[in-house]
Amino acid sequence: MPHKQVVIIGGGFGGLTVAQSLRDADVLLIDRTNHHLFQPLLYQVATCALSPGDIAWPLRTIFRRHPHVRVVMDEVLSIDCVAHLVQLRDSRPIAFDVLIVAPGSRHSYFGHDAWEQSAPGLKTLADAVSLREKILLAFEEAERRRIATGTGDRLTFVIVGGGPTGVELAGALAEIGRKAMGPDFPNLRLDDLAILLVEGGSRILPGFTPDLSAKAVTALEHKGVTIKLNSPVSEILADGLVIGREFVRSTNVIWAAGNRASPLLTSLGVPQDGSGRIMVQRDLTIPGEPWIFVIGDAAHCADAGGNPLPGVAPVAVQQGSYVARLIREETAPDQRRPFVYADRGMLATIGRAQAVAQMGRLRLSGLPAWLLWCVVHIFLLIEFRSRVRVMAEWIWYYLTFKPGAKIIYMQTRQTSEAERTHRHAPRGLTRRDDSVQKD
Amino acid sequence: MPHKQVVIIGGGFGGLTVAQSLRDADVLLIDRTNHHLFQPLLYQVATCALSPGDIAWPLRTIFRRHPHVRVVMDEVLSIDCVAHLVQLRDSRPIAFDVLIVAPGSRHSYFGHDAWEQSAPGLKTLADAVSLREKILLAFEEAERRRIATGTGDRLTFVIVGGGPTGVELAGALAEIGRKAMGPDFPNLRLDDLAILLVEGGSRILPGFTPDLSAKAVTALEHKGVTIKLNSPVSEILADGLVIGREFVRSTNVIWAAGNRASPLLTSLGVPQDGSGRIMVQRDLTIPGEPWIFVIGDAAHCADAGGNPLPGVAPVAVQQGSYVARLIREETAPDQRRPFVYADRGMLATIGRAQAVAQMGRLRLSGLPAWLLWCVVHIFLLIEFRSRVRVMAEWIWYYLTFKPGAKIIYMQTRQTSEAERTHRHAPRGLTRRDDSVQKD
Repeated sequence: MPHKQVVIIGGGFGGLTVAQSLRDADVLLIDRTNHHLFQPLLYQVATCALSPGDIAWPLRTIFRRHPHVRVVMDEVLSIDCVAHLVQLRDSRPIAFDVLIVAPGSRHSYFGHDAWEQSAPGLKTLADAVSLREKILLAFEEAERRRIATGTGDRLTFVIVGGGPTGVELAGALAEIGRKAMGPDFPNLRLDDLAILLVEGGSRILPGFTPDLSAKAVTALEHKGVTIKLNSPVSEILADGLVIGREFVRSTNVIWAAGNRASPLLTSLGVPQDGSGRIMVQRDLTIPGEPWIFVIGDAAHCADAGGNPLPGVAPVAVQQGSYVARLIREETAPDQRRPFVYADRGMLATIGRAQAVAQMGRLRLSGLPAWLLWCVVHIFLLIEFRSRVRVMAEWIWYYLTFKPGAKIIYMQTRQTSEAERTHRHAPRGLTRRDDSVQKD
Repeated sequence: MPHKQVVIIGGGFGGLTVAQSLRDADVLLIDRTNHHLFQPLLYQVATCALSPGDIAWPLRTIFRRHPHVRVVMDEVLSIDCVAHLVQLRDSRPIAFDVLIVAPGSRHSYFGHDAWEQSAPGLKTLADAVSLREKILLAFEEAERRRIATGTGDRLTFVIVGGGPTGVELAGALAEIGRKAMGPDFPNLRLDDLAILLVEGGSRILPGFTPDLSAKAVTALEHKGVTIKLNSPVSEILADGLVIGREFVRSTNVIWAAGNRASPLLTSLGVPQDGSGRIMVQRDLTIPGEPWIFVIGDAAHCADAGGNPLPGVAPVAVQQGSYVARLIREETAPDQRRPFVYADRGMLATIGRAQAVAQMGRLRLSGLPAWLLWCVVHIFLLIEFRSRVRVMAEWIWYYLTFKPGAKIIYMQTRQTSEAERTHRHAPRGLTRRDDSVQKD
């Protein structure tokens, strides 16, 4: 498709796949961030096993040797389907001939946006670093409280949502708490720590078969995680949350329960499902626009059984390849075969040497599933260097239980600002005068 | 010194050395952050060559196998020299028998605190990550402007202060701009970028000999840095700064000019110098308190010529060792030999294969000095794993000019917060209605 302007919104798995498959077309890739994020490993940044730079690659670096792919770091405010224009926050509007809409999703609080303050979710690197610091600071505070009072409350983490993210976070937190953090916080005892995984439905990992869900429950409970099923959360406050009819005191609630597609999608003006996803045609276009595609977490694309495909990387990647081929071959709308997702299986890790995997009729759990998980994720990582590095981190972590990424620095800045204020504050001066007088 | 409580304020080079030398005493190490920071490499985080986790180690991890050393993450508000108590922000006061005060310094704006907003400095990991994002965003914005207008202003970085930090930042920025960033931003031309290094005095690197200063000037100018000597800065505003009598337009000003010791020191109630450092006795104690030591950047400790020792890591480390020995051997005040700094030399790096070194009568510049710099810094890094990792990063960077740490994520969160607001904002709704009506 020469001389046509292809615009891609979003540098996630879907958008990146399209851009990489159309390297010789005139492609403009717009992302709000400057990097592609390997989201499946985000929970490892949040739980101190990896550093942010290990799972993110600058988009400009990825396309450095492909001059036809231009990268713009900007935020898309709206899409004008009639004029075929994309409105940006910081740049002038961009005209397109072909548009791929792949802005992804954020976590959703089912209408309770205020809950985010007390129960942050995990979608971006900023979320992950912020959550990591929250977790580390919670341990610091528990240690201080234990030294001060000798007793102190339990340190309770509550993870809301029993899908893969919730399960992975719960397993990783249990390991940090019970093994890696133990020697670091000598005043905390094992039973000071409680980890609750709360699920509104009747089982965790509902996308997997019931026997694998049961195996995940056993593995998590063995690690010390308490699992509450059929337990919808009805309120989240600063000091705790209401689970079913019970109030659980916790200042460390993590949200892994729901997604909502990007609000940008409403500007397309076509039907959306209850999660804000666009009801795409069978060729992933929107009605009446054969060259506007919606893919990834933003698309509601039904499988053979009529259920929407899950919001996972393989779906986005396959949709990206499918769309790129239609564009490369300039396939006319009536010539297109519908998109079909080839489900190669699902994996969820529960912790060190523990995972569940489901591939066609094959079911794996325990160490074999975990090894499979490692191999798959290592080889999915884009860049050779990061592959080696992440592998080294994991081997190191496996051998030593010594997370290499337990640094708090965002909080540091807040404190130093507090200190600068303090320099001029009456309290500081009073204390100074005190000591001068006494001296 | 059994049964005595040693309290150390600050886990920098000085405080860490004391704690490591007194592993069997009853030591309490207090730091505002949870990590020891290898500050000499901080500019490499700010300029995308290293990641935060590469140059920081959790203090708890360092002392994991030393149960006598307890770590508390807290902020010291004041020191009571009479009651021998340390007041903390989040914990109860702590009594000490022996106190080591090593809280370090912040950058100082010589009374113009408002300048910090426009000209951030570089002391903490938060500073470095924030500066890194500022630099990367400046390139992104210049690229967008160039695409939009075809012309656009020059992208001007101004570094205020010609000491080692300023020189290192200027050299690293020039390399990012001219080599590594070039292929990433195809619309920016080489002469779109200007880097100014501004020094109020008559030469850069004033701690080195004049011939090495001159070599540093040549090397920096060769990289494209413009150096302005005898050019005091009299005003810094949001859109530029006044250098001498000239107004230079720049929204990217970096402060590397002055330090001020921690404001905590005033609570000691003893004489301080103009930079807020404590005028210590010859055994690094404060007057009248033989077991209260002040070391590192917080101490004004004169050398044989009467000049204060520089605020560098080797001074802090040697002072830490000296103090630890006095404590271990319980040396009475009248038995103490004064602290003498053994100057093993100075190093400053200017960029890839470029440095200056001064060791006794030996003067090195260019590649030999840079290799020496690499070896010294690699071996000073505490932990074996980080050594290997930083070495790998450097080799990678040297071979590829491909900085592995060009991720913007703090800014991402701001944007996504803006977006969440936008979801409910009139502008968003209007645009949505627009497109719905047109459709």
